[in-house]
Amino acid sequence: MRNSFEEDLKEISNELQHITNLVLKSVTQATESLLFADREIAEKVIESDVLINDLTSALEEKCILVTALQNPVASDLRTVLGALKMATSLERMGDLAVHIAKAARLRYPSKAIPEELVDTFRSMGHYAEKIVEQTHKVLATHELSVAREIENSDDKLDEIHRELFRIVLSVDWNHGVEAAVDVTLLSRYYERFGDHAVSIARRVIHVVTGEPYLDTVMH
Amino acid sequence: MRNSFEEDLKEISNELQHITNLVLKSVTQATESLLFADREIAEKVIESDVLINDLTSALEEKCILVTALQNPVASDLRTVLGALKMATSLERMGDLAVHIAKAARLRYPSKAIPEELVDTFRSMGHYAEKIVEQTHKVLATHELSVAREIENSDDKLDEIHRELFRIVLSVDWNHGVEAAVDVTLLSRYYERFGDHAVSIARRVIHVVTGEPYLDTVMH
Repeated sequence: MRNSFEEDLKEISNELQHITNLVLKSVTQATESLLFADREIAEKVIESDVLINDLTSALEEKCILVTALQNPVASDLRTVLGALKMATSLERMGDLAVHIAKAARLRYPSKAIPEELVDTFRSMGHYAEKIVEQTHKVLATHELSVAREIENSDDKLDEIHRELFRIVLSVDWNHGVEAAVDVTLLSRYYERFGDHAVSIARRVIHVVTGEPYLDTVMH
Repeated sequence: MRNSFEEDLKEISNELQHITNLVLKSVTQATESLLFADREIAEKVIESDVLINDLTSALEEKCILVTALQNPVASDLRTVLGALKMATSLERMGDLAVHIAKAARLRYPSKAIPEELVDTFRSMGHYAEKIVEQTHKVLATHELSVAREIENSDDKLDEIHRELFRIVLSVDWNHGVEAAVDVTLLSRYYERFGDHAVSIARRVIHVVTGEPYLDTVMH
């Protein structure tokens, strides 16, 4: 028996939230692997990305199927096609967690970051987790206030990203070029989490308001 | 009078190719600004990105409208929704060109890269241009052989990216931390061009074959 359109929409929404929870687990574990040079947890992040890729791919197929079978229009269509786009961002966030885990694995048993930056990266990990939690919330509630919270968390990530640049480029930096390169890339991966979360939040707003969505992921 | 669906599809395809040409111009100029420390050209890249953003946003709206009005199914629907996804990749490629141009502008009147790496970045710029040209070609022809050429160019970009890492991390590196950070990020921006081109090529294959698209932009 064919689903009602309401059932399809509900399933798509649930699946987006489910994948977001998997991404949250990945980013949490990726930060753990980085802060504690934990190779086992790094491997878990890398392995579990296969599931995130499969689920986003299946969700994409579902969105296309629902569009074909139910011929939604107006805000219903925007909801389904918004999900199609959000799936790409979630898939990409999973990849970013993998990049962090791979950096941790590469330097194991050493840490990929100098001891003096552990607190800064812990803070970055905190805001990355927070922004993924907020992403889950905005998907569940469609509340504009949550979208604004996401913009704030993104500002924090940008701020820490700039701070890390200042530290790496200061005359006091004495950890050499390799650590500088690692820190630069790791900081960028975290900062990109924020951009994708903002992109999802703006799409939610787009669905709610119908205003043209300007894709301003500019960092 | 409403367009026929064939006219809509043609317009969407033309618009994808038009935006790809603008991206090609941006990446060519971005490389120029980088290799010659040309601030004026860097500004052009940064300014013209507004147009790319506007056009991708308008294309997205057009895809949604066409889906709502024409209710396409099967491969027609995949074509329209594929375009929706490709627009995101093109918009992002424009952003990457801006990142390169901004790095060039930041270090002006100096070069953002050491003299000894100019040839390597010229080569990277060459393959980035080539892959955008090939992207235009795969959009125009839908030929699988072009999609394979894109995978090859992406391999070249990955190879140069790894080579740059080796240079930056070698004991002979004597350009300091700031140049190392600049080169690392610039190299990554170029490498990401390749990933987005591959993503577009795979979507074209998806549209042609109908096989489930696995979003494996993994770098």
